[in-house]
Amino acid sequence: MINFNLYNPTNLCFGKDAHEQLATLIPSGSKVLMTYGGGSIKSNGTYNKVIAALSNFEVVEFGGIEPNPDFDTLSRALDIIKTQNITFLLAVGGGSVIDGTKFLASAALYDGDDAWDILDKGIRTEVGMPFGTVLTLPATGSEMNSGAVISRRAIGQKRGMGGPGLFPLFSICDPTVVESIPTRQLANGLVDAFTHVMEQYMTYPTPATLQDRISEGILSTLMEIAPSLLENPKDYDLAANFMWSCTMALNGLIQKGVPTDWSIHAVGHELTAAYNIDHARTLAIVLPSMYRYKFSQKQEKLAQYGRRVLGLSGTDFDVAHEAIDRTEAFFQSLGIATKLSEYSVDITGIEQRAADQLKNYGWTALGEHKDITPSDVEKILEMAL
Amino acid sequence: MINFNLYNPTNLCFGKDAHEQLATLIPSGSKVLMTYGGGSIKSNGTYNKVIAALSNFEVVEFGGIEPNPDFDTLSRALDIIKTQNITFLLAVGGGSVIDGTKFLASAALYDGDDAWDILDKGIRTEVGMPFGTVLTLPATGSEMNSGAVISRRAIGQKRGMGGPGLFPLFSICDPTVVESIPTRQLANGLVDAFTHVMEQYMTYPTPATLQDRISEGILSTLMEIAPSLLENPKDYDLAANFMWSCTMALNGLIQKGVPTDWSIHAVGHELTAAYNIDHARTLAIVLPSMYRYKFSQKQEKLAQYGRRVLGLSGTDFDVAHEAIDRTEAFFQSLGIATKLSEYSVDITGIEQRAADQLKNYGWTALGEHKDITPSDVEKILEMAL
Repeated sequence: MINFNLYNPTNLCFGKDAHEQLATLIPSGSKVLMTYGGGSIKSNGTYNKVIAALSNFEVVEFGGIEPNPDFDTLSRALDIIKTQNITFLLAVGGGSVIDGTKFLASAALYDGDDAWDILDKGIRTEVGMPFGTVLTLPATGSEMNSGAVISRRAIGQKRGMGGPGLFPLFSICDPTVVESIPTRQLANGLVDAFTHVMEQYMTYPTPATLQDRISEGILSTLMEIAPSLLENPKDYDLAANFMWSCTMALNGLIQKGVPTDWSIHAVGHELTAAYNIDHARTLAIVLPSMYRYKFSQKQEKLAQYGRRVLGLSGTDFDVAHEAIDRTEAFFQSLGIATKLSEYSVDITGIEQRAADQLKNYGWTALGEHKDITPSDVEKILEMAL
Repeated sequence: MINFNLYNPTNLCFGKDAHEQLATLIPSGSKVLMTYGGGSIKSNGTYNKVIAALSNFEVVEFGGIEPNPDFDTLSRALDIIKTQNITFLLAVGGGSVIDGTKFLASAALYDGDDAWDILDKGIRTEVGMPFGTVLTLPATGSEMNSGAVISRRAIGQKRGMGGPGLFPLFSICDPTVVESIPTRQLANGLVDAFTHVMEQYMTYPTPATLQDRISEGILSTLMEIAPSLLENPKDYDLAANFMWSCTMALNGLIQKGVPTDWSIHAVGHELTAAYNIDHARTLAIVLPSMYRYKFSQKQEKLAQYGRRVLGLSGTDFDVAHEAIDRTEAFFQSLGIATKLSEYSVDITGIEQRAADQLKNYGWTALGEHKDITPSDVEKILEMAL
């Protein structure tokens, strides 16, 4: 087992009406900037609940944070924080609003001239402005981790940031929000969380027995609840297991002590950038081809997954192949197309674009062995046509 | 799923040579009271490693904290904290040393006249003196939770305490300490951790799908590693999975959102108090009889456990019975006797003693349904003769 430090001080407040705790969770006397995205929090009732719970605080609002939150949008919020002496941030939304708010938490206390440097120079955030979240869209785990991804469309860049100062002080996770999420986004959330686990689990075998079991538990849960959840998102228990699985998939726990892959995400990001395909759908496209392409390296773990999560039996070779097929079929059963051809895109030039992007990130190759080159990426995507 | 708050700010530093982080983990300028138990930390090398890592701190030592740490012993340490202006506590040991140090962390900042009130009146510790731990004996999970149990032999009492101020700031968990633990204590640790999971899992079925899967993952891991660990405690990966499983069994995660039982512990505490049987061994005695006695209430979950963890098949009734037998056989395979008669004790009068003790705790009955009375306790122990 690889040495690790597990540190996660976020107070996760999970359950029906958890937002009622807001009034006591936010430090008294705070001047709050409430951040959100489009109008969905107003139509699904979350906005009113939050505003009611904040009645004892002075609250300034900043809406309009877009999916893949943009530096320029966030810079306008940063001006408000500084000019209006905001002392606490409250993100009400999904991963994009939370990620954007993490950037604000860092930038608000950053003493350099240009807050973009935090992303461009990879400056770790040791201390940020305190912030909490009210989660409205389970998927990314951002409500219980210390990382964020920020885009800057004006210069065509997307960068990650993080540090111990970016854990939310608290996160309100009320599963009843799930009932108003469109089916398409629920399916995306299921695939996103599922792939988060796979990126931390489907590597070469290691002696981290317990971590494997916990990852398999999240995968089993997602597969078990998925069909029923899409049919009946108003079922509280299904919604709760979905929301909790999404958090556990990327709150840091299952990555401790093990190697991680993340090549599927890296290639998927390319597809989103080039063809504007939903993030989760790019994962569903890339995952099967990635595992088929890297089959010999992943065969043993694929067989373990096939036996423990999918209940398959047979030789390692057969179980591993079947496991990939079953996983692809699982994505398709959620209404998600897993072939690039179904998205009407043309992958001409993808090798060069992948090479450019890797260079952009400062990487030479992808995967837990760092052996997936831009040329491999092209071959993997050809398999996904 | 029951509403829950998950909050655990302990920085768990896990792995070989993790103690090298000590110098940076303890706030600079701290005056440290290093607490420990008997001499094992001196014979196994931990003492020297810790002292070397603390070279930049002023350190006062307090050894001799006994198993089931005693209020009178700890009161002497409390005097030292107050007279020598200690600002940080470092517990080096197993669950007893860590629990005792949690009491000190609370009592050091308690402004009442008598620190026993913290236990006797159940005063929750919101803020304690900061402390860290160096774990030398995996079993209790105290290194990553905020609870403690303190005895006061002079008046024949044993009390629990807790609160958010009692999470360790950090815990150093180096699996290499496992190699010097006697086999008897390793077996005890395995049973202790296993039963911790069972108390939070083996209740009536609930819709907490993911929590069940995580609990099953810890149980599977402990069963998988146990025989090899006892044969070869120097195997680092076995030791690491053991240590990590013990922490995960009682760091709060798997109890979130589910009902919990804890009747096995309550009855076991009686056996320790009356006959001085090792805590873990009392659990191995009580668990099989408890589940046989409460069979109809637990049949469905026992069957789930039997199928998922033990790989059994058949009717719920048959699988559930077989699951209890296999669990008892597992304890026996570790060299732990599961019958009271093997410990040469006489249970005459146990019903009255159990009744007295329940009253002492302020409880009327035990179990997740609060339906196990002192009369039931006597019958359960008769089944374990």
